[in-house]
Amino acid sequence: MASTVNKTTHTFDKSRLDALLNRRFFYAPAFEIYGGVAGLYDYGPAGSTLQANIIAEWRKHFIIEDGMLELDTTIMTPSAVFETSGHVARFADWMVKDVKTGDVLRADHLVKSVLEARLAGDKEARGQEAAPPTEDKKRKKKAAKVTVVKLEDAVVQQYETILAQLDNYGGPEIGELCRKYDIRNPDTDNEVGEPQQFNLMFQSSIGPTGQHKGFLRPETAQGHFLNFNRLLDYNNGRVPFASAQIGRSFRNEISPRAGLLRVREFTMAEIEHFVDPEDKSHTRFKEVRDVEIVALDRHTQEAGNSETRRITVGEAVDKGIIANETLGYFVARIYQFLVNIGIDPARLRFRQHMGNEMAHYATDCWDAEIQNTTGWTECVGCADRAAYDLSVHSAKTGTPLVVRQALKEPIVTEKEAAEWNKKALGKTFKQDAGTIQKIVEGLDETGLIKLKGELSQGSTTLKSEEGKEFTLTPEVLTIERKTLKQSIREFTPNVIEPSFGLGRILYCLLEHSFWAREQDVERGVLSLPPLVAPTKVLIVPLSAREEFDPIVAEITAKLRRAGVFSRIDDSNTSIGKRYARNDELGTPYGLTIDFASVQNRTVTIRERDTMDQRIGKIDDVIATVTELVFGNIDWAEACNRLPKYDGVQAVE
Amino acid sequence: MASTVNKTTHTFDKSRLDALLNRRFFYAPAFEIYGGVAGLYDYGPAGSTLQANIIAEWRKHFIIEDGMLELDTTIMTPSAVFETSGHVARFADWMVKDVKTGDVLRADHLVKSVLEARLAGDKEARGQEAAPPTEDKKRKKKAAKVTVVKLEDAVVQQYETILAQLDNYGGPEIGELCRKYDIRNPDTDNEVGEPQQFNLMFQSSIGPTGQHKGFLRPETAQGHFLNFNRLLDYNNGRVPFASAQIGRSFRNEISPRAGLLRVREFTMAEIEHFVDPEDKSHTRFKEVRDVEIVALDRHTQEAGNSETRRITVGEAVDKGIIANETLGYFVARIYQFLVNIGIDPARLRFRQHMGNEMAHYATDCWDAEIQNTTGWTECVGCADRAAYDLSVHSAKTGTPLVVRQALKEPIVTEKEAAEWNKKALGKTFKQDAGTIQKIVEGLDETGLIKLKGELSQGSTTLKSEEGKEFTLTPEVLTIERKTLKQSIREFTPNVIEPSFGLGRILYCLLEHSFWAREQDVERGVLSLPPLVAPTKVLIVPLSAREEFDPIVAEITAKLRRAGVFSRIDDSNTSIGKRYARNDELGTPYGLTIDFASVQNRTVTIRERDTMDQRIGKIDDVIATVTELVFGNIDWAEACNRLPKYDGVQAVE
Repeated sequence: MASTVNKTTHTFDKSRLDALLNRRFFYAPAFEIYGGVAGLYDYGPAGSTLQANIIAEWRKHFIIEDGMLELDTTIMTPSAVFETSGHVARFADWMVKDVKTGDVLRADHLVKSVLEARLAGDKEARGQEAAPPTEDKKRKKKAAKVTVVKLEDAVVQQYETILAQLDNYGGPEIGELCRKYDIRNPDTDNEVGEPQQFNLMFQSSIGPTGQHKGFLRPETAQGHFLNFNRLLDYNNGRVPFASAQIGRSFRNEISPRAGLLRVREFTMAEIEHFVDPEDKSHTRFKEVRDVEIVALDRHTQEAGNSETRRITVGEAVDKGIIANETLGYFVARIYQFLVNIGIDPARLRFRQHMGNEMAHYATDCWDAEIQNTTGWTECVGCADRAAYDLSVHSAKTGTPLVVRQALKEPIVTEKEAAEWNKKALGKTFKQDAGTIQKIVEGLDETGLIKLKGELSQGSTTLKSEEGKEFTLTPEVLTIERKTLKQSIREFTPNVIEPSFGLGRILYCLLEHSFWAREQDVERGVLSLPPLVAPTKVLIVPLSAREEFDPIVAEITAKLRRAGVFSRIDDSNTSIGKRYARNDELGTPYGLTIDFASVQNRTVTIRERDTMDQRIGKIDDVIATVTELVFGNIDWAEACNRLPKYDGVQAVE
Repeated sequence: MASTVNKTTHTFDKSRLDALLNRRFFYAPAFEIYGGVAGLYDYGPAGSTLQANIIAEWRKHFIIEDGMLELDTTIMTPSAVFETSGHVARFADWMVKDVKTGDVLRADHLVKSVLEARLAGDKEARGQEAAPPTEDKKRKKKAAKVTVVKLEDAVVQQYETILAQLDNYGGPEIGELCRKYDIRNPDTDNEVGEPQQFNLMFQSSIGPTGQHKGFLRPETAQGHFLNFNRLLDYNNGRVPFASAQIGRSFRNEISPRAGLLRVREFTMAEIEHFVDPEDKSHTRFKEVRDVEIVALDRHTQEAGNSETRRITVGEAVDKGIIANETLGYFVARIYQFLVNIGIDPARLRFRQHMGNEMAHYATDCWDAEIQNTTGWTECVGCADRAAYDLSVHSAKTGTPLVVRQALKEPIVTEKEAAEWNKKALGKTFKQDAGTIQKIVEGLDETGLIKLKGELSQGSTTLKSEEGKEFTLTPEVLTIERKTLKQSIREFTPNVIEPSFGLGRILYCLLEHSFWAREQDVERGVLSLPPLVAPTKVLIVPLSAREEFDPIVAEITAKLRRAGVFSRIDDSNTSIGKRYARNDELGTPYGLTIDFASVQNRTVTIRERDTMDQRIGKIDDVIATVTELVFGNIDWAEACNRLPKYDGVQAVE
């Protein structure tokens, strides 16, 4: 809201963004002084506060707004849980080995990068590259080993079809592709072997004897499912309700190379919404019907295309494109959340999973994908997992994980039922009494009616499995019609699961927020919305003179009381340099304290994106900046309230 | 502040508290339906919100108040880091094995429980038990296998001395104690073997080849140290500054049995305050000088006693009991934090580590211990770790981890220095030139002065290690006095480390908050302060009638806008039962909506501890409850504003 500047006038340069994020310690490779470990990153002050603000907004937008039940369950998990959930058998990626060096590569990523490089080389050979290549593009081209070779039209068509369906292939198909299209390790030009499965869970053992195998969870979901009965009880036995958890998960990725987009340890936020399988409507769906998304549906992809369409969530549910209202509700809420924190809606789409891509038990699944320099990246998954999870854990442990619902109208059914004269039965048949009872219990309704008819004629003859015959009379057995009243309905709820990868969202947000000033491309700016910006207000005393101290203290205290997080920069450099540093940290507003502040109690306020400066009395400026930070007014309105500043002290 | 009730009129009953915490799902054994795993717990909605509120207050009290730099570093850590830090070699507990069953026990805990049981048996034999034993005490006595046997006075004395110094013993000493006092496994009455070290870190391996050994961090501290240079840079190169991190850590405890007090996975909050080793004063120490703590110092314990004394932090630092101002500052801030969130100050003490208990590099260490039914439990550690951590990582990696400080006054020193005539040296001594230079470089100031004297006489003779002699003249070498100016001071900062175990604090807080009403001991109450209570306000419509809905919605929206977290309980039970449930959840205030609310726009407000009820107009009650929740007024003041309610609808 604060920004009135066209941020896209400059070509995006990933290497400049990466340098900024490293320089300002948003995040950095973990254990850097020990040489680092691929896929592990530490968040510094700016990054961890940005992450904390995204989490706070997530908690407000989802947990508080919809009264969800928050959980905090353990990461270390005994093996049995993941054996039941299917993770031990199936939570794996396909990897291939370079036949000569033994280097390990993720199979689908290899196919993707090689085919994309060939298509890029073909495009260049056909002279189809629109703009002259930027530094960034040149770097990427070199990394991807693009060689300029024109391909046959039919081959181009084949490659594009393969890429559109890549997520639909299993290991054997990928192996076949590697042979058919001579796909090799681009680093060595060696062939690769057959794809093999590699389980992505980190393993450990629990306790001093080393006998109890454990895994680090690869998602938080199992913690919700295992506590289902306690959650249901907490919710007074009613569905629908949702549990929510924000926490760390681990995946032992094969060869992570994509920064925060593919890491081995990450913070997730997951919701498990438990719902009646016979009624997946949502009471608040009407509030989000008109939310418009960009959708890429299953059928389009399965036909080898990637054309998207704009559609409201309401229409998508009405037409059966999104399977049900609850799933649609969450798709819309995910959209709103991402746009609120600053994701560019033009670079956000929802892609439906294809048939083979989805787990066999799932009904429907949509990924929120965000476009960035590596392409479209899945940042949120939103799946209808049906009753799978609760059913398998219940079956394995023998613990019912069901909802018992009092029926408003009891269901009345009539049924034939056997009535025994136990005494006569025992006396007549002795040790065979049990066998006879079992035979009758095994009969269905039709069988019982036939028996009833025969008994009404005087007697009936039953035959045991071993061929022994027994003749029964109404003295021993009668069949009577009984009325049964069922007043409780018992069912396993279905689960709708929105699952957020916070690190991926954070990285995409940084890409979407980054730009450079036309007059100074070296000078990066992160136009983070005030809602998530790590620091909301920078306080800049003109110099380290003691006379500024009381005003700095006063402004700091007043902002803290207003709930606005500020920082003081009294370092020994020019005001311009201090502001430049804070443009890179995404701080939306700066207050400068100079001699006029001491004499007239005025301060200037500077807006990050426009560098526009306004002046006012201390309390007026604090009131204005507070409203700006909480999103009640925009910068245009602030400019109505405060006159332009054109003094000389604080210019940059 | 809200409470005006004497909560200690009833004997504390741990089994009732445990039942409440389980029933209301504050927390529960993780993987319960799979039989659970010792030392792993899941937090339910009440527990995780309580924890989130404690964390929010921690962030405000420490990070925001002192402008600390927040970090979020990885849990998975390559082995090399913990080899350097000493954890691979020394982060271990002593365990003993039952010689017949092979059961594993923690050695020091075994000694403690057996000796304490013998002392309890002795006390009973002497008829010293004051009150008749409660159910709770009986249960504990049975669990601890107390047998009533009177001991010799001298033996009692010995046991008490051992218990006071237990943390000071190593494995061999504990083994000796087991033999000398015939300490056996209480479960089997079998002897135990020699104590052996068991490393408490969970191990795993990183990447698809399984070659990279990793550990789950047992504390967050290393993540701070490894990022020291980046943090220093973020802080414009200045010390002191502090980094802070809240995150999960793991310890593979030998046989955890003490609920949340000893777990294998837990959330910590750690501060690393980096300070000039030559100046450990603290600019804000004057603000906390008068904070009074209960202290148990090292000397008292080493003399075998456990007598505490009340002392201000100022006096403790002045007298050298606490080593320095910065350590004292944090002791006081820890005290304030714990009391703010609801820990009973009468059950809080600071215990200093004894000589052998402390790491060899540490200067001083104080534990904040909180008394609970298991005794005094360490909940916060506060150590001066000197320069140890930065030094070892720097030495191992070759990366300087130092502060470079421009000196206001450069340090000027004079020194004798060798000046060579390289040409003459080479010409005269050929291949021996290097040897000669090395001999002179190896001389200290005194040696150089002697050489200077001899050269001024015409010549000097040097002898190599092999006994070869060289005669030098001033043509080849002169010694001159030079002035050296040092304008940069370089030093490795020291680290003061306050380290919080949040689960332990949370559990002690629950014990300190729990009581039962005299008229109804079945009815538990958790008198959590509004600051940390999971829900601040319960909204209770008299019944599920639709006419209450608009008022419920209005109050919910107004409280949300005021930043007060509320929940609605419209379940189908009596108001009394709904309030009882929320007393157990620690909800401090309840608003009842009845027919008068619809007719007159009034609601009643109920205070949890006194069950006192007041009535007022909706907006007045919302304004009052908001001030109560934010701690601006207390219940007495609320009673001044709102008249007593003595209607009939809402009585319990």
